[in-house]
Order: sequence, then C-alpha cells, then structure tokens
Amino acid sequence: MIKAGIIGSTGYAGAELARILLRHPEAEVVWYGSRSYVDESYAKIYGNMFQLVEDSCLDDNLLELSRQADVIFTATPQGFLAGALTEEILGNAKVIDLSADYRIKDVGVYEEWYKIKHKSPQFIGEAVYGLCEVNREKIKGARLIANPGCYTTCSILTAYPLVKEGLIDANTLIVDAKSGVSGAGRGAKLPNLYCEVNENIKAYGVTTHRHTPEIEEQLGYAAGEAVTISFTPHLTPMNRGILATEYASLKKVRQPDGSYAFPDGAQVKAVYDAYYGKETFVRVLGEGAYPETKWVEGSNFVDIGFQIDARTGRIVMMGAVDNLVKGAAGQAVQNMNLLFGFPEQEGLETAPMFP
Amino acid sequence: MIKAGIIGSTGYAGAELARILLRHPEAEVVWYGSRSYVDESYAKIYGNMFQLVEDSCLDDNLLELSRQADVIFTATPQGFLAGALTEEILGNAKVIDLSADYRIKDVGVYEEWYKIKHKSPQFIGEAVYGLCEVNREKIKGARLIANPGCYTTCSILTAYPLVKEGLIDANTLIVDAKSGVSGAGRGAKLPNLYCEVNENIKAYGVTTHRHTPEIEEQLGYAAGEAVTISFTPHLTPMNRGILATEYASLKKVRQPDGSYAFPDGAQVKAVYDAYYGKETFVRVLGEGAYPETKWVEGSNFVDIGFQIDARTGRIVMMGAVDNLVKGAAGQAVQNMNLLFGFPEQEGLETAPMFP
Amino acid sequence: MIKAGIIGSTGYAGAELARILLRHPEAEVVWYGSRSYVDESYAKIYGNMFQLVEDSCLDDNLLELSRQADVIFTATPQGFLAGALTEEILGNAKVIDLSADYRIKDVGVYEEWYKIKHKSPQFIGEAVYGLCEVNREKIKGARLIANPGCYTTCSILTAYPLVKEGLIDANTLIVDAKSGVSGAGRGAKLPNLYCEVNENIKAYGVTTHRHTPEIEEQLGYAAGEAVTISFTPHLTPMNRGILATEYASLKKVRQPDGSYAFPDGAQVKAVYDAYYGKETFVRVLGEGAYPETKWVEGSNFVDIGFQIDARTGRIVMMGAVDNLVKGAAGQAVQNMNLLFGFPEQEGLETAPMFP
Amino acid sequence: MIKAGIIGSTGYAGAELARILLRHPEAEVVWYGSRSYVDESYAKIYGNMFQLVEDSCLDDNLLELSRQADVIFTATPQGFLAGALTEEILGNAKVIDLSADYRIKDVGVYEEWYKIKHKSPQFIGEAVYGLCEVNREKIKGARLIANPGCYTTCSILTAYPLVKEGLIDANTLIVDAKSGVSGAGRGAKLPNLYCEVNENIKAYGVTTHRHTPEIEEQLGYAAGEAVTISFTPHLTPMNRGILATEYASLKKVRQPDGSYAFPDGAQVKAVYDAYYGKETFVRVLGEGAYPETKWVEGSNFVDIGFQIDARTGRIVMMGAVDNLVKGAAGQAVQNMNLLFGFPEQEGLETAPMFP
Repeated sequence: MIKAGIIGSTGYAGAELARILLRHPEAEVVWYGSRSYVDESYAKIYGNMFQLVEDSCLDDNLLELSRQADVIFTATPQGFLAGALTEEILGNAKVIDLSADYRIKDVGVYEEWYKIKHKSPQFIGEAVYGLCEVNREKIKGARLIANPGCYTTCSILTAYPLVKEGLIDANTLIVDAKSGVSGAGRGAKLPNLYCEVNENIKAYGVTTHRHTPEIEEQLGYAAGEAVTISFTPHLTPMNRGILATEYASLKKVRQPDGSYAFPDGAQVKAVYDAYYGKETFVRVLGEGAYPETKWVEGSNFVDIGFQIDARTGRIVMMGAVDNLVKGAAGQAVQNMNLLFGFPEQEGLETAPMFP
Repeated sequence: MIKAGIIGSTGYAGAELARILLRHPEAEVVWYGSRSYVDESYAKIYGNMFQLVEDSCLDDNLLELSRQADVIFTATPQGFLAGALTEEILGNAKVIDLSADYRIKDVGVYEEWYKIKHKSPQFIGEAVYGLCEVNREKIKGARLIANPGCYTTCSILTAYPLVKEGLIDANTLIVDAKSGVSGAGRGAKLPNLYCEVNENIKAYGVTTHRHTPEIEEQLGYAAGEAVTISFTPHLTPMNRGILATEYASLKKVRQPDGSYAFPDGAQVKAVYDAYYGKETFVRVLGEGAYPETKWVEGSNFVDIGFQIDARTGRIVMMGAVDNLVKGAAGQAVQNMNLLFGFPEQEGLETAPMFP
Repeated sequence: MIKAGIIGSTGYAGAELARILLRHPEAEVVWYGSRSYVDESYAKIYGNMFQLVEDSCLDDNLLELSRQADVIFTATPQGFLAGALTEEILGNAKVIDLSADYRIKDVGVYEEWYKIKHKSPQFIGEAVYGLCEVNREKIKGARLIANPGCYTTCSILTAYPLVKEGLIDANTLIVDAKSGVSGAGRGAKLPNLYCEVNENIKAYGVTTHRHTPEIEEQLGYAAGEAVTISFTPHLTPMNRGILATEYASLKKVRQPDGSYAFPDGAQVKAVYDAYYGKETFVRVLGEGAYPETKWVEGSNFVDIGFQIDARTGRIVMMGAVDNLVKGAAGQAVQNMNLLFGFPEQEGLETAPMFP
Repeated sequence: MIKAGIIGSTGYAGAELARILLRHPEAEVVWYGSRSYVDESYAKIYGNMFQLVEDSCLDDNLLELSRQADVIFTATPQGFLAGALTEEILGNAKVIDLSADYRIKDVGVYEEWYKIKHKSPQFIGEAVYGLCEVNREKIKGARLIANPGCYTTCSILTAYPLVKEGLIDANTLIVDAKSGVSGAGRGAKLPNLYCEVNENIKAYGVTTHRHTPEIEEQLGYAAGEAVTISFTPHLTPMNRGILATEYASLKKVRQPDGSYAFPDGAQVKAVYDAYYGKETFVRVLGEGAYPETKWVEGSNFVDIGFQIDARTGRIVMMGAVDNLVKGAAGQAVQNMNLLFGFPEQEGLETAPMFP
C-alpha cells in the first residue's frame, strides 16, 4: 500500500482523483491539499464523500508532503508546480502533475501560449509525457510525469496511429472538440453558472487554446516533423465528457499491388487495431460507428470511430473520453500504476455509467 | 463464484444490474435475457458495455435459466413473474424480483392498484420484502425476494425510524417525491422524449401512483397499525436520482423528566442514529443538512436529513437515492449478497460520482 | 409612450424586464441601472440584446431617475429600495418594486424573516401588493407597488380561491415548490455553477424561506384569520419555471341539499372558474390535469390543476409559472399596465415557448 | 388578414409555426393539419396552447386547404409535398414547404441523397430557395418556396459573403455543426429519449447528412462553380439551437496597394457588413466574438462571428440560429411576409430569451 498526496484536491479533477484512489487497493490518500479550504472537512466540501473521507484539508507544502507520501498528484493552476518543485521533492516522491507545467518540451512555446514565465525549466527534460498508450515504457522509470490535458488526450489518441503510419496529412488536421462544463473547474465564475451554460453551446479560445501546442508537439513526434493544426474547443451543456471530431486529408498509401491509393476503411481499422488492439482503455469502434461521450462516462476509456469521405478525400475521426477520468484523474492513476508496477487497470475498472 | 441470470436486462434497471455484476467478485452473469433483443449483441444495445460484455441476448425462459443459474433477477413488467414463477423454478434458483409482483401481501390491494389479476398469489406469503436495512435476517433465508420500488425505498427508509419510534403521526405523512427520468424506463414513448422532459417539471400519477400502497404497508408495520399517506411523484429533468421530501406532524414523546413534549433535533437525530448508525448504505446527515441526489449518484447510499418546524409542529424529512442503484439494481445485489452470505457491500462500494 | 427606468437591470429579473419592455408598445426604457456595470454596454452584458439595446448602464440614482421616468422598476437586493425611497421620488414617478421591501405589512415580520432593519416603514402602509388578479382595483390608484415574489405568486394563486371560499383548511397547507435556477440570480456563487446544479435536486431554506410569511399574509386575508403553513423550496435543474405542489385538508361545505360534505371535483373546479374564468393570465386546467412548467415558459400564465384524494381527505393543488415572467418581470409589467391604464395584457401576449 | 394552413402542425416545426402565427397581426391559421391527430384538440397535444388555440386537428387534404387558405405551410416528411402538389393547388394558394422536396435543383442529387424518387420534378424549376437574405427579390414573386433546412440556413449564411467575395476557398470548407434535439422531431424514437441524449454528445450522419448537397448547391452559386464540402452534424443536449463552426483556407486577395495578401479581420468584417449590415435578422458580431445559441433562442436571428488563424492560414467562422425559428418556422414566416408584402420582420420581433 503506497501513500499518495493530492495538491489541489478540491477542484473537480482533484476530487475525481480522491474518488478513484478511495477504492484503489494499493494506494491510500494521506494528504488532501487545498489552499482554499485548509482545515475544513473534505466531506463538507464534497458531500458525496460523507462518511467515506474523514480527513480535513491540508495546505500545499510540497516538501513536507514529499516526506510523507510515495506519490504526489498536483491538480493545480498553471505555474504552481513549476514554482515549487525541487530536486529534494523529486528525490523523496514521484510527482504526477495534472497541470501543463512540464508537458511541452520547448519552454519558449510554453511561455508563449501560457503567458507565464517557467520557473523550473531544468526539470522539463526529464519529465515524461504521461500518455500511457504512447509512452508506457518511459513512464515506468520516471520521477516526474506530465499528465496530459483532457482535450489533448482525446485529440492525440484519436489521430495518433494514422499520423504515425502516414495515412493522413497531419498539417490538414482540424480538431473540433466539445467538452462538458467540469473542464472549466469549480471556480465561481459567471460564465460557468448554470443559467449561462445550460441550453447553450459556444466555441471559446478559438485559435488560441493552450492545448493546441501540446497536440502539435505529440503529433509532431508521430509525424517525424513539425505539425500545425487547427483546434477549437466548445463548451457543451453536460457535466462530463469530451468529443473530438477530427478532420484530415487522407494520403495515398502503398497498396499490396505496389500502387498508391487512399486507404479504405479496412486499412484504417487495421492500423487502429495494430496500435490499440491490446490496450485496455482504448476501444476502437471502427468505421461507421460514432462514439458518444455518455458511453464512456465515469470510465477510463477512450472510444474511437471514423468515417472515410471519398467525396472530399478526407477522413473524419471521432474520439470520446470522460474529461475527468481518462482526461485527468484516471490517466493520472494509470500513470501511478505504471510507476509503481501495479496492474495498469488497477482502480480503473469501473464500467461506464449509463444513463 | 455464483451464476446469475437477468430477465429484462435491456431496460435501464436491468442494464444497471449488468453493470454492477460485471465487477462483482463473487458473481458472473450467464444469461442476459431480453424479449425485445433476442440474439442481438448486448454491447450493441448498451454501447458502454463494448468489449466488456461479449454476450448476445437470450429469451425469458425462466425454467431453463433456473437450471443454469444460482440466482435470477427479474427486471420485468408487472405481472410477468407472477405469470411465470413455479415451484420448480424456486427449487432451482433464488429469485430476486425487481417488479412489484410480490411486494404487497394483500393480493386485493395489489390487484386494485395495479389493475391486473395476480396469477400466482400462492408465492406472496413466502416472498420477503427486500428492504435490507429492515428485513435483513428474513432475507438471508428466503427463496424469493420482492425487491422494493425506487420511490418506496427512499420514502420508507427516510420515515421509518420516526414512525417506528412514535415520533411522528404516520397518517399525516405527505411524501412529495422527485425522480429522474430513468425511472420511466427505456420505452420509446413521447412523454419521455428529451424535448418533452428537459427544462420541465411536472407531477404525475397524483393520488394513484402504485408505490403508495407499498409505502403504506411497510410504514404500517412500523406503526403497528394501518397507515394512509399522500404520495406525489414528479418527473425531474435529470437522468438519475430520487429526492423524497416528507412532511409529518410530530407527536409528543416522553422526555427524561417524565413530561411530554415534541422531540427536538437531537432526539430525532438519536433515533435515526440508533437505526442507521451501523448501516453501510444509510448516511444520516442530520438536522439542517439537506441531501442532494447528486451526492449519491451511482452509489447504493441513501442520504437522510431533516428539519423540525416549531411553527407548524411538523418535521420535514428528506431522503435521496440513486433510483437505479439503491432504488433498484444496487439493492437487488445487496439482497443477493445477503442471500449467498457475501459481504453485504460486495460490488457496491463505488463512491458517488460528482459532478 | 411612457418612460421607464430599471434599477438592477443586469440581474435575470431585470434583464427579463428589459426584454419585455423592448416590445411594449406604450413604454420605452430610458435608464438601464446597474451598480456593477456602470458605463458598460448593456448588449455586452446580455448578448441577446445585441443591436436591440444600444444603451450603456447607468447608476442607481433613484431621485434623478424619478425626474426622467414615469415609472421605476427596482429589481434590487432586499433593503435597497427601503433605504433609498423618498416622498419626492414617489411624487415624481410610480415605483414598482420587485424586491420584498414593501410586501409585508407587519414590519416586525419583515425584519424577523429578512434579518434586516426596515429603513422606511412609513411607506409600507400605502404600498399595494401587486398580485393583479387579487388586488386589481387597488393597484390602479397606487404610487408604490410591491411586486410579489416568484414562489409566492404561484403558491398564493394556486390556493387562493379554495382558501377564500373555505374549501380547504389553510393551516393544513403544505407547499412543496420546485424552482429553476434563474431564481437564484446571476451572482457568481459556487452552488449555482452548472456542475453543482445539473443532474441534481435538493431542498433549501427548509422552514426558513422568506417567501413563507408573504404567502401566509396573503392567504390570511383570504381566510379571514392568521394562517401558518409549511413551505419548502427546491432547486431544480432547469433555467426557468416554478411548480408548486400544494397539499391541504378539505373542509366539508354545505351542499345543495343542506347537508355538509367534502367538495367534489366539479365543485372545486367551479370555485376556480368563478375566480379565474375571466382572467387572461390564469388558466385553470381542471381536475386530473397537471401543469408543467414548460407549458408556461416565457409567458405570463399561471396554470393550475388539482386532484382530490378521497382516501386522505386532502386535495393536491398544482400551479406552474415562469418565475421570471409571472413570477417577476411579467407581473411587474402587468402592474405597470394597470397603473397607466393600458390594456392589462399589453406586451405580455407571447405564447409559451415549447419545446 | 390572410388565411394560413399548416400541414404537419403537430411536429415541433409545425408547432413553432402555429406559435408564431398566433401573434402575427396579418395572418390567422385556419387549418391545423396533422395526420396523426385528426379531430384531436390542438391544445391537448401542445399544452402551451391551452386557451390560445381552440381548434382541433384536420387532415392533410392539400387541395381542399388550398381553397380555404392564402398560404400553406408544409412541415411534412420528405416526399409528402412532392407527391401531393398540383398545378391547381399552386393556383389557389402560395405554398411554403419546410421539407427538402424542392430545395435542390438537380433532381438526381435529391434522389441520391434522399433515397426516394421525386414525384413532381416539374415544380422544381419554379420553386424559389427561400433564404431571404440571399433571394429576397425572387421570393416576392414566387408561388412555391423551398424553405431552407436548419443546418443549411446557418451554415450557408455564415460562409456566404466570404465565398461570394472570394476570401475563402470553398472546397476547403469544413462545417462542424451542433444541434439541439428538437431538430430530430417529435417522433417517439429510442435515440431521442431524455436519458439517451442528456449528458451526451455524438456525431451522426457523418459524410452522409442530407443537408450537405443543399449547402454545396447554394455555396456553389456564390462561388460560381461546383463546391464540395465536409459537413458533420452533432446531437447536443439542449432543446433548441444550432451552432455551426466552419473552417476554410483563406485566399489571398488584392490589397489597396495592388499586392495580394490574406485578408485581415477588418477586411473580413467589412465584407460581412456589406452583405448583412442592413439585414434585420443577421447580426455580425465581428472578429473575436463567438456566437452562443442561447443568445438567439426563440428569435429569428443569425449571429455570426469569426477568427482568423494566421498560423494555419485558415479562418474559423461561427454561426448560431434557433433551429426552429430562423432554421424553420421563423424563416417560413419571413418568406410569407415577403410573399404578401408585409414588413419582413412582422411577427418575428421577439427578442431572444435569456436565460
């Protein structure tokens, strides 16, 4: 049984971490950190935890926590961990960061998109981007995990095999993503009020959303070259879920007879299966099947479907995740499992809840 | 590992049973019965089960099923089980009925409220009303469990201790209940369409809802006399959850000094605690705390709060459940656990999901 | 064409006033008051008003406004108008107050429930409670209108004729009310965030909600004696709408043959029709018909239905309104129409929007 | 006062027509046609119309209706009007068809996408595509109006000026559209049940949705050449509203100094303003402003915003409509106004409802 601490445990992602870890057979939470609620009963803040969590919230003293815990999760605002992380902390405990501080290798790109100065660029190099299906082996030996963003997890995994195998032109990629409101966090802000969001859909952060360079970096590794994409997030009236609808131009690929032609559905499916056929948490629905966010709610699954459009020479890929699970806390636990040698699906086996 | 069969596995309650049993360490589902979908892939009908359930649906041949299974769950329309149950079936397997067929001991009352002829009244006597917190010991030895209704589970448990201990006059009880839409089932009916239900609240079945006599019977046992109540269900725009707001006149009770007075909050709380203090699945929030359906979503909990109103001499009790879990499938599994000697909370430990 | 000013025009009720008055043929808004948004473009704050309202927000200088306007609407926090109203203002312009400052005749009751000192009790006497269907003639000559609360409008109108005619015992009245979230206002508070409210229902303010004494006072006038009731509001996941489910014990009334008996459905219906048959904005659905909030959305209607319960000797009355229209801004405009001799339905004829 | 008939008056679009026409000062509905509800009270089917509409439903006898009405609206399934329309009917009354039967000029394209044989292709030629902002003058003299689809109205108007003026390459256009559930109609189908749609988002009809060729045809006229686009609709958990997010590659345009360069925001805005500056129902929000469906709910507005992405050389255009108003019934009434010489905005001036 390892000991885990959560800094930022009273945001929605932190609370989902607390919820998942509560039933994890190999980990126990010893530190519910929350700057806003120090000394307040956790179960008063999250009524679902009544009689399940007896703890009160602690502060965000990372060093002290690192002495008490084997693993630290930081579900904190951008810049917090970068400003607090030290070699000593990393020497004491593994750190899984749910913020973006160590996701982007080029610190200049980070600072440009996030509009903040990075305070500990020296750790960027060793941080492993915790997209388990892509970086599994690297994760196992890491001290510092940069847990991927919600939109990015969904967007990257949906396109990754086709970019990697050269079936699509990554520079034509357009990701139109729709997210539930929990992605906006638990801050008391007018735009997130029920009456502002309910019965409403809108785009936001058009051309400027910070998950854009993260997707570009990872798909760039797959493509073997720099990639520029369009990414548009939308706020959708539901609690949880992200659906990414992704458009790209197909590339002609070498056929068995030596000629070059656009791939057909079976070929695309075969590529997806080659990458994800053995993955527990990626479910390839196949051609003509469209994922729905509700089918993955509460689970760590990514569901992927696609449709080839012969008229336009494009493919439409669709991916769905629960933004708080595979898009945040679930993937963080999956990373923890890899770091400590637990079965990868430990604590994450809940079937999606429907309805 | 016992073998379980579900008749009516493609309704919402049946699907929740399938979902819970999927992760139950002591049971496996060997029969997904569904008259409407025989031979169809279960995971096509419920996309959340993709790659988790490989089975196709079978028919509703109870006798055959009883030979293959240790326990049968019937999540079927009223009258189905009453028309199909036999001594042979009960000899082969335990039966947990999620319909109302064996809940009401007086067959005349059943036939009056349900407007159907009961076809096997001979089994009513031995059926045990599966409200675990009240009938735990009786359940353990039963062959046939009448799993309580969703509204009734919530309504009864919320008032039960106060009726039993004589703190309230049960004949003044008014239960105003609000339910999510999943309680209406998965039938394709116009009133359950999204646009008819969304942004809308209405009462239905006023003075005639079939859960009324079920509540009256059970609270009558607690009161030691026949009880007549008012019960009004409402359809609320949410998937899951029941909130029962219950009003009753307080009765004067003997005080430590020998006088008689209305109970105060502490006395009421003490009564609740005496009944539920050791219960895993009943959480007494106490006076001035109001349960919210979201705090129990996806879990087998009943949350109970109350408020005394000195001005009117009434008490307002409030109870919240997830109608598909404690109100149906979860309680059915809890009954199964009791029947087979498993830990009562086995398979039911998921913390409520929020948000 | 009269000139109108709105103080508090950027709350939801104020915005609904602005929306209704925009299409009112006899009134124009000359003052969009908003302490929080002085000098900001109104259409930036409410995007629906883009290109419809060109004004920027002004402050809350009531005296100055009273010199420019014929009528002032105050959609302001409790205590604001009581602290600002003067004889001079009332001499300049009619005032329709959407807050509770002048609704309750007994200043002690006001101060007890609202926990604030009333700063201008000298105006309470002349203020007319603007429930148009009850106080129509008094309203016409008034200077100061106390526009009823949202819950109270619905709760009172639903029970009023039966209390007035002695068909029910008002002291047995229990009002279980369910409201959409817009009733909580546009303040950026955590409990009103989308993810906190969505897929959730809860009671609040149990036994202490401030609309209680307002209902009691008005039904007391109808009963001819002081009345004490139970009132419980609930927060429901929808933008608009209030449904009040009201329970009361029937009283025996004199029958044509001279005997006394409980009224039947036809008798109850006849009483409702006698009071509301000629009312434009009250629609009596009758026995066995249950109002739905969606059927009145966006309109000034109150829909009323009922069901007699012979088993318990009670009647269940149900009323539905749009809390922002008949429950606030619509009724305020109805009052304005009465004050200025316009047709009562002017500007309020929009049919309810469905779905 | 003209007389109007509605065939298909009990679908959501038909009901919205009934609602708008109820308050139209120049038109009255004399025929509520509904094959499913003949002889049933209209107000029983749509409770919002209680005491507002006294009529019962009639059948779909177009010829008889054409003798009684000046204008006929057909809100009917694909193929109905094509199978029923005659020269005699068109001689008697104007016909505004909300189905797709006469929208597409090439009958082969119609039959390919709709998978039905067109039964009266002889009327296709004279039918005018009723997109008022584009075809205003042609509409005025027409007998037969093909009222545009909901997705198409939004998608076309959002891109039209930029295609027409050559600022974007229409063949790169990708339309990712999100619709409320009312677009799916009032049929009692499982996928439209509350619990299936709520808390869920999914794509459907990917690459095959029938609105695709309609968009292509109209934008083809603007481009002056055949156009092929990608169109993906999504089902979003809300009653009303369509948001179209549209992506296209910018084209270099001649600048004042004679050089060629990508247009900047001001140039794009100027083009939009040139086309829509005088339009009542199109509101150009401008660069960096993102439309929200809630801001147009219940109104006939189209709100348009955009963002240029210098990194990718693309523009993101966004348009929002209420699918039942500008996307169906409102635009149909706008067409009626044009046909009969009424002010174009008559009956359509309701400000959007918020929240």
